[in-house]
Amino acid sequence: MATTAAVLADIFIMFLAAKLAGELFERLRQPAVIGELLVGVVLGPFALGWIGVPTGAMIEAFHGEAQAGEAMASIYEVIAELGVIVLLFLVGLETRLTDLLRVGARAGVVAVLGVIVPFVLGYALVAALGHPTIEAIFIGTAMVATSVGITARVLADLGHVRGDEARIILGAAVIDDILAMIVLAVVAALGSGGRLTAGEIALIAGQAIAFTLFVALAGRHAVRRWSIHLERLRIRNAPFVVAVAVMLGLATLSAQIGLAAIIGAFLAGMVFAELRDQYELEHRALPLYELLVPLFFVITGSHVDWRLFLDGSILGIALAVTVLAIVGKLVGCGAGALGLGWRSVAIVGVGMAPRGEVGLIVANVGKSLAVIPDAMFSTVVIMSVLTTLVVPPVLTLLYRGQPAETVPMPRTTDQFAVADGRLPEL
Amino acid sequence: MATTAAVLADIFIMFLAAKLAGELFERLRQPAVIGELLVGVVLGPFALGWIGVPTGAMIEAFHGEAQAGEAMASIYEVIAELGVIVLLFLVGLETRLTDLLRVGARAGVVAVLGVIVPFVLGYALVAALGHPTIEAIFIGTAMVATSVGITARVLADLGHVRGDEARIILGAAVIDDILAMIVLAVVAALGSGGRLTAGEIALIAGQAIAFTLFVALAGRHAVRRWSIHLERLRIRNAPFVVAVAVMLGLATLSAQIGLAAIIGAFLAGMVFAELRDQYELEHRALPLYELLVPLFFVITGSHVDWRLFLDGSILGIALAVTVLAIVGKLVGCGAGALGLGWRSVAIVGVGMAPRGEVGLIVANVGKSLAVIPDAMFSTVVIMSVLTTLVVPPVLTLLYRGQPAETVPMPRTTDQFAVADGRLPEL
Repeated sequence: MATTAAVLADIFIMFLAAKLAGELFERLRQPAVIGELLVGVVLGPFALGWIGVPTGAMIEAFHGEAQAGEAMASIYEVIAELGVIVLLFLVGLETRLTDLLRVGARAGVVAVLGVIVPFVLGYALVAALGHPTIEAIFIGTAMVATSVGITARVLADLGHVRGDEARIILGAAVIDDILAMIVLAVVAALGSGGRLTAGEIALIAGQAIAFTLFVALAGRHAVRRWSIHLERLRIRNAPFVVAVAVMLGLATLSAQIGLAAIIGAFLAGMVFAELRDQYELEHRALPLYELLVPLFFVITGSHVDWRLFLDGSILGIALAVTVLAIVGKLVGCGAGALGLGWRSVAIVGVGMAPRGEVGLIVANVGKSLAVIPDAMFSTVVIMSVLTTLVVPPVLTLLYRGQPAETVPMPRTTDQFAVADGRLPEL
Repeated sequence: MATTAAVLADIFIMFLAAKLAGELFERLRQPAVIGELLVGVVLGPFALGWIGVPTGAMIEAFHGEAQAGEAMASIYEVIAELGVIVLLFLVGLETRLTDLLRVGARAGVVAVLGVIVPFVLGYALVAALGHPTIEAIFIGTAMVATSVGITARVLADLGHVRGDEARIILGAAVIDDILAMIVLAVVAALGSGGRLTAGEIALIAGQAIAFTLFVALAGRHAVRRWSIHLERLRIRNAPFVVAVAVMLGLATLSAQIGLAAIIGAFLAGMVFAELRDQYELEHRALPLYELLVPLFFVITGSHVDWRLFLDGSILGIALAVTVLAIVGKLVGCGAGALGLGWRSVAIVGVGMAPRGEVGLIVANVGKSLAVIPDAMFSTVVIMSVLTTLVVPPVLTLLYRGQPAETVPMPRTTDQFAVADGRLPEL
């Protein structure tokens, strides 16, 4: 039982520290999420070591050997995964399909350009430095995906989660993740020495696109047709329970067919967005958010080895890759948003910048295939973190003076009395 | 990431199956919790094997060897632990200290007799069968503790969680757990070949009693004095977040000083019972309950190896131990409840019968010290499960015709509108 007690203690320390840091950052008028990430860095195994180690694979990659804590590590992965699933589910609840379709074409352009430009820039830089082609391809791939968690959180904190820019970003991020997973599947096949026919590539791509369209359209149809039966169920709190089951189910399905679990969670939220107000689904999901989402950000922060920043040569390449990663999304995604005004272009570009855990996934795959060396892995880690850290302050700045569409973070204690289904506490 | 995806799939399967079984059992007018336990047995590694293995220690004990799934196992332990923590926190929220003190003396008598009688019966049986003294002492100890989770759930399902019998059971279970942990600490020291002075025993006992009294009294004082400051915090949903932090903190503290984590969680709930209605703490904690508590019961069920029931000799001893375990609590705890009427005596006796995971903890300790053999371990497992399974139907029968004190399980979807702080959905 010692292990369970130790994990429980870790969860308590992470939760308490996250909330204390959140309180501090709120008072400094900064997003609480930065405080939560910094708590992870400080408490993590590379600094104080108060909370458990990150994944065995990460530790191994950093130090070239497995560590004692490896067996426990995946617990934190699972908790973090549940946290980001709940986060994207709540974001999905905010996103009615009809609203998304309104920005659909533009989101598609933003996503595609946001994949092509960073990939080309990353590939070109690494190839120009004389690294092997496969290495350049992996760095390019790590720069493709958008980790929309941080952006979604900042948009919600600022009360802009229902604005046009938010819908473009969220829509593009969904398309982007699908494109990134396709690219990763193809690149991983290349990295393991295999060859893919054009037909196989088309199959992977078709599966991913079909899944998203099917869930979004069939799910909406099912909800409209069957939701009346929710009231006949005998289990308590049936609509919320069914929504949670669908969230877990679509996340699982999406992970099983090779997409990120958060895509399924987002789609589940989108499907239930129609029933959001009728069954107070947001208010009921918020306690899950309060418990799990800060843990996700603390655990993400704990993956950062601050000592990497002390190595000048790694830092130099890392900063160059980071700059290209941000410029790539700013140019690619911003170009897709042209015509909305400079502020919206900048918001979309910056909002699409964070790579977060998606970049780390790509780095882990490359590492496990032994096609990218330690220094390049560290580079991707730094790029993922910096592109993520840069978003909250810049986005806050870009939205300054803009009236919020939803109520940003009310401080009263009667949020549950809010009846119009807004997402006040996200 | 394969591991995380597999665990996510397990969580989804467990959640979905638990809710489907819950719906079925509700329609059969049986407590949903039985369905959840049976789902665990069926999905678990000893039957279908659809969900992850139980703890490495359990598997090892059953088969004499560690299994491949060991590294993943503790994830389920952690999820189950969080589930039972949330369960006892919500039960604690229902238990104002003033109400508990009203039944305090009687609860104390029930607890002490409920420890002595089963211990003596278990010890006598195993010693009479010719087993070594240390083995008899461990079986006696495994029969001492009360696992109040199932009883609390059934009482809440039936709407009797605020009755006198419920308060006696919950109060006695708290005292009982503390006594059991003291006995276990002493017995474990004996089992590992050490000797304890009377002074050391007194120290362990004193620490446990002091913790409970200190938390209950100082916690109530702190809440009364400081709760006004909760409204000044900037973090969202501050009262709920602080309550969750205290829940995790006291559970951790209580585990760290050698008590069960659920004792701390229960005390945390009791401390916040005073603020329950003011901040809708129950309504906010319920979504955590809906997600985590069914997982606890499914995981508990998955620890059951149904094949043990096919071995005649193990089954014979196991049934004898089970009968004594139930008779011991019926006589011991029932005696403590004399004068309340036969129905209350029976309710208290039956309600104190389940050993659940507490009996399994004792068995694991004995196994890890190599002082109890496999057959005795299996005996304790069967006893823990049977004493737990017997409670829901018998308690439901005993309460038949009694008017519920709280609303039992409303089926409407507007439970969040219930304003008087009752616990309709537990």
